[in-house]
Amino acid sequence: MKWSKSYLYTLKDAPADAEIPSHQLMVRSGMIRKVAPGIYTYGNLALRALRKLETIIREELDKRGCQEILMPMVHPAELWQETNRWSEMGDGLLKFENRNGHKFCLGATHEEVITDYVRKDIKSYRDMPANLYQIQTKYRDEIRPRFGLMRGREFVMKDAYSFDADSKGALKSYDTMYAGYKAIFDRIGLQYRIVEADAGNIGGSQTHEFQVLAEAGEDHLMVCDSCDFAANIEVAPAADKVPHLSADTTEKTLEEFATPGLKSIGTLSKATGVAERDLVKTMFFSANDGRDPQNKDLKPVAVLLRGSDEVNPVKLKNALGLVNPPLLLTDNEVKEVTGAWPGSCGPVGLKFPIYMDTGVAGLKNFIVGANKDAFHLRHVNAGRDFAVTKTVDLRLARVGDKCPKCSAGVFKSMRGIEVGHVFYLGTKYSKTMNATFLREDGSSHPIEMGCYGIGVSRTVQAAVEQSHDKDGIIWPVGIAPFHVHIVVLDPDNSEVSQSAEIIYRDLMAHGLDVFMDDRAERPGVKFKDADLLGMPIRINIGGRGLQNGEVEIILRKTKEMTKVKLESAVESVAAMVTQMKRASLQS
Amino acid sequence: MKWSKSYLYTLKDAPADAEIPSHQLMVRSGMIRKVAPGIYTYGNLALRALRKLETIIREELDKRGCQEILMPMVHPAELWQETNRWSEMGDGLLKFENRNGHKFCLGATHEEVITDYVRKDIKSYRDMPANLYQIQTKYRDEIRPRFGLMRGREFVMKDAYSFDADSKGALKSYDTMYAGYKAIFDRIGLQYRIVEADAGNIGGSQTHEFQVLAEAGEDHLMVCDSCDFAANIEVAPAADKVPHLSADTTEKTLEEFATPGLKSIGTLSKATGVAERDLVKTMFFSANDGRDPQNKDLKPVAVLLRGSDEVNPVKLKNALGLVNPPLLLTDNEVKEVTGAWPGSCGPVGLKFPIYMDTGVAGLKNFIVGANKDAFHLRHVNAGRDFAVTKTVDLRLARVGDKCPKCSAGVFKSMRGIEVGHVFYLGTKYSKTMNATFLREDGSSHPIEMGCYGIGVSRTVQAAVEQSHDKDGIIWPVGIAPFHVHIVVLDPDNSEVSQSAEIIYRDLMAHGLDVFMDDRAERPGVKFKDADLLGMPIRINIGGRGLQNGEVEIILRKTKEMTKVKLESAVESVAAMVTQMKRASLQS
Repeated sequence: MKWSKSYLYTLKDAPADAEIPSHQLMVRSGMIRKVAPGIYTYGNLALRALRKLETIIREELDKRGCQEILMPMVHPAELWQETNRWSEMGDGLLKFENRNGHKFCLGATHEEVITDYVRKDIKSYRDMPANLYQIQTKYRDEIRPRFGLMRGREFVMKDAYSFDADSKGALKSYDTMYAGYKAIFDRIGLQYRIVEADAGNIGGSQTHEFQVLAEAGEDHLMVCDSCDFAANIEVAPAADKVPHLSADTTEKTLEEFATPGLKSIGTLSKATGVAERDLVKTMFFSANDGRDPQNKDLKPVAVLLRGSDEVNPVKLKNALGLVNPPLLLTDNEVKEVTGAWPGSCGPVGLKFPIYMDTGVAGLKNFIVGANKDAFHLRHVNAGRDFAVTKTVDLRLARVGDKCPKCSAGVFKSMRGIEVGHVFYLGTKYSKTMNATFLREDGSSHPIEMGCYGIGVSRTVQAAVEQSHDKDGIIWPVGIAPFHVHIVVLDPDNSEVSQSAEIIYRDLMAHGLDVFMDDRAERPGVKFKDADLLGMPIRINIGGRGLQNGEVEIILRKTKEMTKVKLESAVESVAAMVTQMKRASLQS
Repeated sequence: MKWSKSYLYTLKDAPADAEIPSHQLMVRSGMIRKVAPGIYTYGNLALRALRKLETIIREELDKRGCQEILMPMVHPAELWQETNRWSEMGDGLLKFENRNGHKFCLGATHEEVITDYVRKDIKSYRDMPANLYQIQTKYRDEIRPRFGLMRGREFVMKDAYSFDADSKGALKSYDTMYAGYKAIFDRIGLQYRIVEADAGNIGGSQTHEFQVLAEAGEDHLMVCDSCDFAANIEVAPAADKVPHLSADTTEKTLEEFATPGLKSIGTLSKATGVAERDLVKTMFFSANDGRDPQNKDLKPVAVLLRGSDEVNPVKLKNALGLVNPPLLLTDNEVKEVTGAWPGSCGPVGLKFPIYMDTGVAGLKNFIVGANKDAFHLRHVNAGRDFAVTKTVDLRLARVGDKCPKCSAGVFKSMRGIEVGHVFYLGTKYSKTMNATFLREDGSSHPIEMGCYGIGVSRTVQAAVEQSHDKDGIIWPVGIAPFHVHIVVLDPDNSEVSQSAEIIYRDLMAHGLDVFMDDRAERPGVKFKDADLLGMPIRINIGGRGLQNGEVEIILRKTKEMTKVKLESAVESVAAMVTQMKRASLQS
C-alpha cells in the first residue's frame, strides 16, 4: 500500500481522554477513532492487524476441529430469560424493545444462543464432541468505558463453545483449547502468562486466563519467580514462605484490657508493642449475596485475618459458596450483631459462623476486640475461646509468598491485560436450557459444555500496550499491519522512486505486506511517522545511498541500522521477517 | 472438511414460515437457522459462502483503490440528528437508550458515521479522491421480515463511500464502482441485470441497481428484449411501441351527458363503446408529502392518464419534486376540491395543477368526468378545455412498451432481487454535516459523495434462489462453500476409504475446497444430501467402481455423470472447476 493513495492521517497529539500509551498511540496513528464513548471506527491499519489476528485464530482453531459459525448480535429476551441472566447480568446487558414491542438485547456473550442452537441438533452421544466458534462484534454497556479498545463497549470477540458427553470429554476439549490458545498467542509474538482465575458469574469450575503482561493492565497477577506458576490475585493461594508461628507455646489466661481510641490495627500495634502480623483483625460480612431483593436476611459471618493481611473477596465468596463477593456489614450492622462498634470487635462470644484465615492458625495468645466498645482481649486462642467454622485461605497473596507449585519460588507481582479465557462450564447452561442427549444406554443427560473467549480487538491494543517506545508502536511481527515500511527519501528523484517501486513489488512478490511512504514530505516527517506506525522493518531509500548502491534497513524495535546493497535488500528483509516469526514462536 | 467431524444437520422438511425455495433450502441444508424473526445464525457452510463473497468483494474493491475500514454498529443519536434522519428514517431505525440515558441507534446505513469520519481528516482537494468501505453487520427493524436472508432484520452488508472534489470526479468514482460491481457479480457466476432505479430517500441523482434475476424477486423489472437496457419498473420510461393517436383530426364541440352508475373506466367503456385506452381517467393526489405533521395544506393536483394505464407513483413523485410518493386524496377530499365524488371527476374547470401523462397527448375529443355527480363530458380537448401544467411520463411501463435505448426492442417483464446499488449522492450529506474542503484557490466547498452497497448475506441467498432445482441448491462456483463433494459409498471398505482419502487430499493440494461425506449412511441418503447441499461437483467412490479402477463424477447442475479412472479423477475435477470459473466470467 502506498501512502499517497491511502486514507491515513496521523496526529501529533493524543486526545485528552487517552490515558495510557496504547490508547494514545492507536489514536495518533489513525488506527482508531472514537465515535462515542467505548465505540470506535477502525482505520485500515488497525483492521489489518485485526484481520491478521483473526486469521491466526481461525487457523489454529480449525486445525483443532473447531467449526466457525456466525450468531447474531441482536438476541431475543426469551433465551436470556431461560437462564435468568436477563436480570442477573444487570445494566451491562443492553436491552431494548423493537417496533413491535418485542424485547431484545445486544449480545454481550453467546452461551444462551449457542445452547439453543445445539439443543435442536445434538440428540446423541454420537453427535459429540463438537466445538463451534465465531468471530463477531459484541456489545457490553460498560458504565465507564476507557483505555480505547481495552475496555470498550463495542468490541470484536472470538467466542467458542465445546459440547461433550461427559466431563472427561469436556476436560479434553478444554485442554485442546488451552493448547490452541497457547499456539495463537505464541504466533502473535506477545509476552503473556497463563494464570489461574476465578470462574466469575459465567459459572463452571476450571478456568485459566491468558494475560498479556503490561504495566497498564487492569489485572493484578502473582507470578512465581522460578517456575511457570501464575495466578490472578483474585485466586492466588497465599502462604508464607517461612510459616509464621507465635513464640508462645502454651495458652495463657484470657484477659480484657481497656483500649480507648485504639480502633485500628496500626494504633493498636503502636500502643501494645505487638507487631501487626501478630494481631488478629475481625471483619464482618453478609453471606446473603443480595441477588434476591426480597430476602433481607443479614446472615452475618466473621472473618479473622492477621493484622497485616488483606481479605481476598473472591476467596471469601468461594468459601461461603456465593455467586458474588459478599458485602461488608455497615458499622450499624456490626454494632447490632456484636454489641460493639467496629474497632472493638472480635470472635469471642459471637453467635454466628467464624471463618479463619490459615495465617491465623499459627498464632497463640493473640489480641482481638472484646465486643465491648474501647476494650480488647489478650491471650485469645482459637478453639479454646471461640469455635472456628472453617480455617481456610482467605487473604490476598502478596509479593514474597511461597509458590504453591515449586518449592523454590516466591511470588512477584505483575500487571496483565486479560486477552483470553478458557472455562469448563459443566452443565450450568445445558441443564437450565434443557440441552440434553441420549447416552448409549438410552439415558438422557445434559450436555457438558466449555466456553472459550479471546478479546480480538483488545488483543490488538494489548500488543501495542506491551510493545511500544516513546516514539510509537513496535508491532509484534505476527499481527503487524505491514511487515515492511519503505521510506522514499527523494520521491522526486526518478532513480530513487524507480528503485523503491522495484523493492516494493519484489517484497510483495515474496509474500510480505509492504507499506511505502511515497509522499512529498521531508525525511524527518516520514521518519517520525514510520516510528509512530511501528512496522517491524523500515527501509530508507534515498539518492545519497543509491550513489553507493545501498539502502538502509532499520529494525523498529532496536533502531539498529544496517546498510545493504540494493540488489540484496529484498532477500535480507525477507530473511529478517522469517527470523522474527521464528523468534516470536520461541519466546 | 469431513462430514463425520462436522457440525452439520440437514432437515427433511422446511419450516412453515419459509415461503420461497431459497429460504426453504437454506434452512433444510443447515445453512441458516432462525433465532428471532429476521435474525439468523449462519452455519459453517453458509459462512463459507459468505466469506468467499466477501473475499471477491475485497479483491475487486482493493484493486480499484478502495480502502477497508470498520465502523461501529451502535451509533450515537447526535450524528443522525445532524442530517434529520433520526426522525426521517422512521421506525426502521432501531433506537434505544443506554444505561447512562444516552440515545443510540443500530446502524442501518453509515452515511452519517462516515461523513463524520472524513470531515475530521479531509481538508484539501489534495486529500481526494478517497473511497472507504466496510463489510459489517447492519440492523433494520423491518416490520415484516420474511424470505430468510432476503429481507432480514440483521444482515451483512458491504457499504462503500466515495469522496471527490467535484462532480466530475464523483462520477468517475461512480463509474469505477459500477465496473467493480460488474466484476464482483460476474465472478460469483450469477445471472443479473444492471437497472436504472430511483434514488429513494438516500438522496442523489444518478443510481443503478444490480438485480439478480429470480421469480421470487421483490422488484419488478422492465428489460429490453433486444438490447441491454433494463430498469426498475419504478423508473422505466413508458412509451407505446406504435404511438396511439385518436382517429379524429378536428376538435368537436364539448358536450355533457348523463352517466348514472358509471363510476369506473370499465363500466364507462362498456356503456359508451369507447375502448378503455381512448378514455381519460383523472386521479387526485396531495403534493404535500406529509413530512411536516404541522403542515396540513392539501395542495391538490390532478393526474390524467389513459383509461388503460396505471399511474407510476415514483414518476409522479419526481414530477412533483417530492421526497416521498404523494398520497391519493380521499373520496371526501376529492368531493371537496372538484365538487363531485370520484368516478365523475375530470380536468375541466379545476383551479389547481393538472399533470398529464404523455400517453394522453395523442388523444382528441375524449371523455372525462364532468365534476358533477353522474355526468361526464365528451369531445374534451387538452389546451382548449383545460390548461395542462405539465405533460410528462407518469404511467407504469408494461410489457411491449418501446425500449428507450434501441429502436428494435420492446420491454419484457422480469423479477429481480436487488443485491447491489450505486448512488451518486452529490453534497446532500456533506452540506448538512459541514464536511468541506479547500480548493486550490482557497475557496471552501462541500465534498462530493457517492455511496455503494452490496447486500452480502442477501446475495448468498439470491444465488440459491436463482440457482436450485427440486432436489436442492446448485451453488454457482464463485461462492460455493466447497467446490467438490466426495461421497464415500462404502466407508467400511478400507480400499474405498483410503482411495477417498487420497483424492480428498490431492484435491485440496490443488487448491480446491473439498467436502467429504464419510458417514456410515446408505448411499441414497448421501446422494439426497449431496443434491440438497449443492456443491458444483460430486465424486462417488465405491467398491464396485474401484474394481474397474473408476470413480463417478457428477455435475450438480446437469446431473451429467462421467466415469473416470481413479488416477485421473483429481486432474479432471480440477480442470472442471477451472472451466466453471471461466464460464461464469463469460456468462
